[in-house]
Amino acid sequence: MNTMLQTIKYPEKSEWQKILQRPVIDSVSLEETVDGVLIDIRKNGDEAIRKYTKKFDGIDLSNFSVGSDEISNAINNVTEELKAAIQTAKSNIEKFHNSQREKETIIETTNGVECWRRSIAIEKVGLYIPGGSAPLFSTILMLSIPAKIAGCKEIVLCTPPDKNGKVNDAILYTAQLTGITKIFKIGGVQAIGAMAFGTESVTKVYKIFGPGNQYVTCAKQLINKSGIAIDMPAGPSELAVLADTNCVASYVAADLLSQAEHGADSQVILVSDNEQTIAEVAKELKKQLEQLPRRDIATKALANSKAILVNTLAEGMELLNEYAPEHLILACNEPEKIANQVVNAGSVFIGNYSCESAGDYASGTNHTLPTNGYAKSYSGVSLDSFVKKVTFQKLSKEGIQNIGKSIELMAEAEGLDAHKNAVTLRLKSL
Amino acid sequence: MNTMLQTIKYPEKSEWQKILQRPVIDSVSLEETVDGVLIDIRKNGDEAIRKYTKKFDGIDLSNFSVGSDEISNAINNVTEELKAAIQTAKSNIEKFHNSQREKETIIETTNGVECWRRSIAIEKVGLYIPGGSAPLFSTILMLSIPAKIAGCKEIVLCTPPDKNGKVNDAILYTAQLTGITKIFKIGGVQAIGAMAFGTESVTKVYKIFGPGNQYVTCAKQLINKSGIAIDMPAGPSELAVLADTNCVASYVAADLLSQAEHGADSQVILVSDNEQTIAEVAKELKKQLEQLPRRDIATKALANSKAILVNTLAEGMELLNEYAPEHLILACNEPEKIANQVVNAGSVFIGNYSCESAGDYASGTNHTLPTNGYAKSYSGVSLDSFVKKVTFQKLSKEGIQNIGKSIELMAEAEGLDAHKNAVTLRLKSL
Repeated sequence: MNTMLQTIKYPEKSEWQKILQRPVIDSVSLEETVDGVLIDIRKNGDEAIRKYTKKFDGIDLSNFSVGSDEISNAINNVTEELKAAIQTAKSNIEKFHNSQREKETIIETTNGVECWRRSIAIEKVGLYIPGGSAPLFSTILMLSIPAKIAGCKEIVLCTPPDKNGKVNDAILYTAQLTGITKIFKIGGVQAIGAMAFGTESVTKVYKIFGPGNQYVTCAKQLINKSGIAIDMPAGPSELAVLADTNCVASYVAADLLSQAEHGADSQVILVSDNEQTIAEVAKELKKQLEQLPRRDIATKALANSKAILVNTLAEGMELLNEYAPEHLILACNEPEKIANQVVNAGSVFIGNYSCESAGDYASGTNHTLPTNGYAKSYSGVSLDSFVKKVTFQKLSKEGIQNIGKSIELMAEAEGLDAHKNAVTLRLKSL
Repeated sequence: MNTMLQTIKYPEKSEWQKILQRPVIDSVSLEETVDGVLIDIRKNGDEAIRKYTKKFDGIDLSNFSVGSDEISNAINNVTEELKAAIQTAKSNIEKFHNSQREKETIIETTNGVECWRRSIAIEKVGLYIPGGSAPLFSTILMLSIPAKIAGCKEIVLCTPPDKNGKVNDAILYTAQLTGITKIFKIGGVQAIGAMAFGTESVTKVYKIFGPGNQYVTCAKQLINKSGIAIDMPAGPSELAVLADTNCVASYVAADLLSQAEHGADSQVILVSDNEQTIAEVAKELKKQLEQLPRRDIATKALANSKAILVNTLAEGMELLNEYAPEHLILACNEPEKIANQVVNAGSVFIGNYSCESAGDYASGTNHTLPTNGYAKSYSGVSLDSFVKKVTFQKLSKEGIQNIGKSIELMAEAEGLDAHKNAVTLRLKSL
């Protein structure tokens, strides 16, 4: 079979784990370097930020804050066509994330004992948006929109400046469109440090969101250990496609390439119950790859990737649940039925017209998703990520009379007499 | 003023941060030791578990699994009175956590573009329950009940054996009552390692929950870095009370002591707008402390604790939002009104009859809550903690026609041509 993907035929279940193994990410080797930068920022604030910005971004900035003139310029420079596209995406993302608001319901668990929970916005959040060759303004939509819906009071955005001290126009346009007013030209580890510890210019935040390279990922891990929350652990982007003869081979190939172009470490996996389908997709892959500007990156990513031939779609879905892909496309017969068998995935794309790039930009779902198998235990970013759910309880006299005895007995059995006494005193006085 | 609590009168807002500072927890110094044990467990499985159980728990066990005879004995040994108390608590916790189920709603963000999310149980979870002087069987209720409601398929429970190789009866009774069948006599770092990596006896899980000492906390942090999710970062338990002349001083004192008895590192904070209230609570504290079995622990905890006199309840609540207490009791006039001003807290107890121990055991709310100021960004354990929320999207032909152009423009502006091409191919074929 002439395929660019390594093809594995009918693997035994016992082999799945080995086949699905991801490349191991070595985070420890960077830790010392990154920790050194963080300590410097914690101690020296803006002065340290300036030093590292000069060193890593090649520009000496005395002021990191993006000014209103820069915003105005950006608004002028972005084409009307792109503005309309961003607004369409914004509208869909808003609709879907608005639907994630939780209603507050009081539950009377026992007569006189009322319990409820309230979603309260995290007051201060920080968003990191990488710059460089691919200015990910779409990620601003994915983070800033739910932050605004949640009601976060301070939203700080950091993004690296280019060598001339400028920030990409689409990034600035999107940031202002979603109502962000605190934008700083700070990149990499410096940005994470500035938001985690606060500096003269940058507000200290309670939670940091956003993608980044291995240095940024390492910095997020380190500040997480010191008590600042982060969106989720990071890893290279991934896509799995479950396809049968109902798929369109050229679509599947295009979807696999859209993932492969992200980076040389991206992983794509094609699972099918039909050998001919795999062959057709492989043929299309080869054809489309030739026309791709980022074909060098995509070729490297495809080298890490696999096509797996299985006996049935159900078996394929079982294998994919073991893999827990970040993105999962179901390009097969009765995709909704298969979708009900999904256990571990970040986001699922159902049917031939649901390409992964729809979710990356404009369908309305969030594109900040768990990679590296984390979909087994982590959710993608949603409105939930920007709130804390605080519980409340109110006991009346009747309430404490109804459950007081139970509390006393349990506290006593745990050897916690003061816990018991807090109830005993109240019961006695009634 | 004769008070056991250090009293601070009318502090300036600029002083709040300093006053509210918590003792710094040094986790780094343990890391090497704990990491050594984890590496050994990863490599040598049950053999290593056996070695450390002998070393740390003083018992040589060849089989860590709790047998059905031990469960039967435990059921016989727990008094009917305590069984009924545990069942009352279970019923309330079930009612409240059942109410946290999320309804699946399909949102059509654009004609032909349907998005929804589904809560899917984390398949394998591990619960750690400390043993020792205070056998925390109540924590089993708090973790196992939402795990069962979520539908987790494998729930593993580890708890340390005593010197005779036994586990506390109430722990075994509660575990079987909530339907846990895999119970292991493994404690401390060994338990965290066994559940994180899996051994011959213990299933590898995807997320680990539960309290523990500084070694357990450190082990959870380390395995979290390697990709296993954990419930939340840990710290010493805390209680803050906002009280005015409407409080009952003896209740407030009892509540403060119920927190102080947890450990010498526990923190309690009393905030009031009335000097006489603080004096009365202090008097009661002294009186009640004398009769407390765990008074040595409580006295030490009170030494770290503070009473703060403020000008108004609103100012007091602002100060408490800055502190972000794990538990917050509102023993004051119109406590519901003040409750609406809560931004940062784990769980809130409203009015004179809502003692903290009610939430610890039986009101229905969860007692696994964010300490150490983490309430600024983390929620307590809830049904959410046991599920992943997976997003789904389904685009029809009309759907991709409606948003296709926007995706193409955004992908192009981000320099991701393969992303664009996945849409272009589809649009062309329609």
